[in-house]
Amino acid sequence: MEVRAEARAVPGFRFAGVAAGLKTVADRKDVGLIVADAPAAAAGIFTTNQVKAAPVTLAQQRLRSGRVQAIAANSGSANCFTGKAGMKLALGSCAAVAAEAGCGEELVVNCSTGVIGHLYDLDKYRSGVRRAYEALSTDGLAEFAQAIMTTDTTPKLASTNLRMGGARITIAGAAKGAGMIAPNMATMLAFIVTDAAMPAAVLRRILANAAPQSFNAITVDGDMSTNDTLILAASAAAGGRKPTAGELAAFEAAVGAVARSLARQLVYDGEGATKLVTVEVRGARTVAGAARIAQQIANSPLVKTAFFGNDPNVGRIIGAAGACGVRFDPDLLELWIDKIRIAARGMILVEALPAAAQAMRQREFTVRLDLKQGTGRFIMMTCDLSYDYVKINAEYTT
Amino acid sequence: MEVRAEARAVPGFRFAGVAAGLKTVADRKDVGLIVADAPAAAAGIFTTNQVKAAPVTLAQQRLRSGRVQAIAANSGSANCFTGKAGMKLALGSCAAVAAEAGCGEELVVNCSTGVIGHLYDLDKYRSGVRRAYEALSTDGLAEFAQAIMTTDTTPKLASTNLRMGGARITIAGAAKGAGMIAPNMATMLAFIVTDAAMPAAVLRRILANAAPQSFNAITVDGDMSTNDTLILAASAAAGGRKPTAGELAAFEAAVGAVARSLARQLVYDGEGATKLVTVEVRGARTVAGAARIAQQIANSPLVKTAFFGNDPNVGRIIGAAGACGVRFDPDLLELWIDKIRIAARGMILVEALPAAAQAMRQREFTVRLDLKQGTGRFIMMTCDLSYDYVKINAEYTT
Repeated sequence: MEVRAEARAVPGFRFAGVAAGLKTVADRKDVGLIVADAPAAAAGIFTTNQVKAAPVTLAQQRLRSGRVQAIAANSGSANCFTGKAGMKLALGSCAAVAAEAGCGEELVVNCSTGVIGHLYDLDKYRSGVRRAYEALSTDGLAEFAQAIMTTDTTPKLASTNLRMGGARITIAGAAKGAGMIAPNMATMLAFIVTDAAMPAAVLRRILANAAPQSFNAITVDGDMSTNDTLILAASAAAGGRKPTAGELAAFEAAVGAVARSLARQLVYDGEGATKLVTVEVRGARTVAGAARIAQQIANSPLVKTAFFGNDPNVGRIIGAAGACGVRFDPDLLELWIDKIRIAARGMILVEALPAAAQAMRQREFTVRLDLKQGTGRFIMMTCDLSYDYVKINAEYTT
Repeated sequence: MEVRAEARAVPGFRFAGVAAGLKTVADRKDVGLIVADAPAAAAGIFTTNQVKAAPVTLAQQRLRSGRVQAIAANSGSANCFTGKAGMKLALGSCAAVAAEAGCGEELVVNCSTGVIGHLYDLDKYRSGVRRAYEALSTDGLAEFAQAIMTTDTTPKLASTNLRMGGARITIAGAAKGAGMIAPNMATMLAFIVTDAAMPAAVLRRILANAAPQSFNAITVDGDMSTNDTLILAASAAAGGRKPTAGELAAFEAAVGAVARSLARQLVYDGEGATKLVTVEVRGARTVAGAARIAQQIANSPLVKTAFFGNDPNVGRIIGAAGACGVRFDPDLLELWIDKIRIAARGMILVEALPAAAQAMRQREFTVRLDLKQGTGRFIMMTCDLSYDYVKINAEYTT
């Protein structure tokens, strides 16, 4: 099974993305639609932020039914912290989609992303939905991905195929990220669709298993969004027999791989990012301990500026590791940049630093911290902290 | 009682700071001494990082006695993650000071700050100590403060006077900060001395009460140092009667005020900081909840870049507040920049934003978040995240 960073047609679904004028820059796509030919099985995972956008609250309610027929998404406004008017707008947006799709409103969710605290124009949204509905195409996932971009510089797409129950199954997804990417539910919006036949309960389990190693294992700036949404929907259009246990496991692995590809693309295109850094912590007493240390390293501004500066700064990395309350003995640890060991026996291996600095000049490299105290292991993906992160976020208008 | 950001003579102590060549830039002061005329009562608080510098471990052991006669400090190297050689160096450094001061080694502590993972030259240190000892002066606290600077742009000094037990009491302190300033034990090095007569047990209690609202209530980058040390020492040289309970409370308040002044100066001079921002969270259900929310806001890169960009970005502030797991109802909260209310009733008060943006152009302003759900309150001091933070930390060599 090979995952490609590209769109693919998924029988049972059509897609579109159009420019409706919700973004301040004209002609940028900002309304996207995913419409199923018939109600699809669906599951979702949402932000755990106390401040949830109205569309998140609404989508959370509606997806409890395990069914969805249309998923709309808009950029240009997060419709968050918008009071009662925000919920009215979310409901009105879904109603507009339902009217086009000719389905019940309860089968529609709308996901919003963009600036917090501002409403978007419902009339513009409606006319966007109308045009998007006309533009729906089995090949339209790439346009959908463009419509959900905010400070993203590229659309995020991933897809794969596998055989299951005698049928050829497709899995394809689109996501947007860039900023406010935190270790928990670390995406803003991600949608994965498949033509497999899967009940909602199975989709829920698959998502719950896929998230910890994909969207929950990445960080750009440690800031948790108010709108994080991950939806998995299955049309059953591929047909085929009931899958065997082995086939189901392979399908679950394929969804996980698509999720990881999208998550990886989010970090690669993190705000101002010039490097993608994999932080692997192993040898911790527990997986939870490894995860806490990996998160602390991956979120440390001092570590991330050192990545930007090609500086194999052992002190900052182990200082961050030691700061999160997980106990370990610094004299036992080993620290590596790619295949270059830069710390062992409680000391920096000074002679290895020039090669490590050279390795850090790559677009991608790995920091591996082995605590040598157990079998707990966790892998995070993060990016560096550059001048452009500051530029993007200091000059991004409210 | 007025605290001034300046040095003051403290009877019973002499101070010095000299250039010993430990810093890469020649002629920068890098060895400081505080020597008491006789063993002084003392207490310390140290980093809770799992990775502790050798001098921290040693000072922690020695201060258990509650007595100190000489406090040495050096910049240019943190002597952290330096293995057995690091402890040998810390012991040798203290021995050099003890030889000059003519006291037992167990009455000497040495505190180090600078790059992690590198040893400093003990011979250079020794000759520095020798010259520092000769230069000791009752008026030398400002030189001492200079000797502990790393990326600090200014020395940090604070002092005050009060009457207690019929005597005139002086309290004076010096600190260094700049980076790796986290919410817990948020300093690298701070030293406060007084001529009051106070047993070590009382000094310990006073420090434990002063830290939460001073050094533990500030952040620059959320990175916890491996060398954080705060020491309070009392010479008893002022004489006077035993203080009344009221006088003791006033003394405790004065130490707290000196600590807060130093903590504030650390944030004011945070790496790349162009603004000092007070983050006040009130109306939380508990003080602990208020503290967690204040820390989350004060450490958020998105919030801090918005501070830098004069952007009253309600979404980022309440998004950070909602991310730390403390429950609250967003519809009840009110958010203020200084005296300008920018959010209430679950919505942004858009018309107030231009005035708020104007207020954010000041060198100092306050963000006040009132959750309206209880009486829990916590105040943090933080700074903005600027291009210069990235510059300092991406180009600071290991």
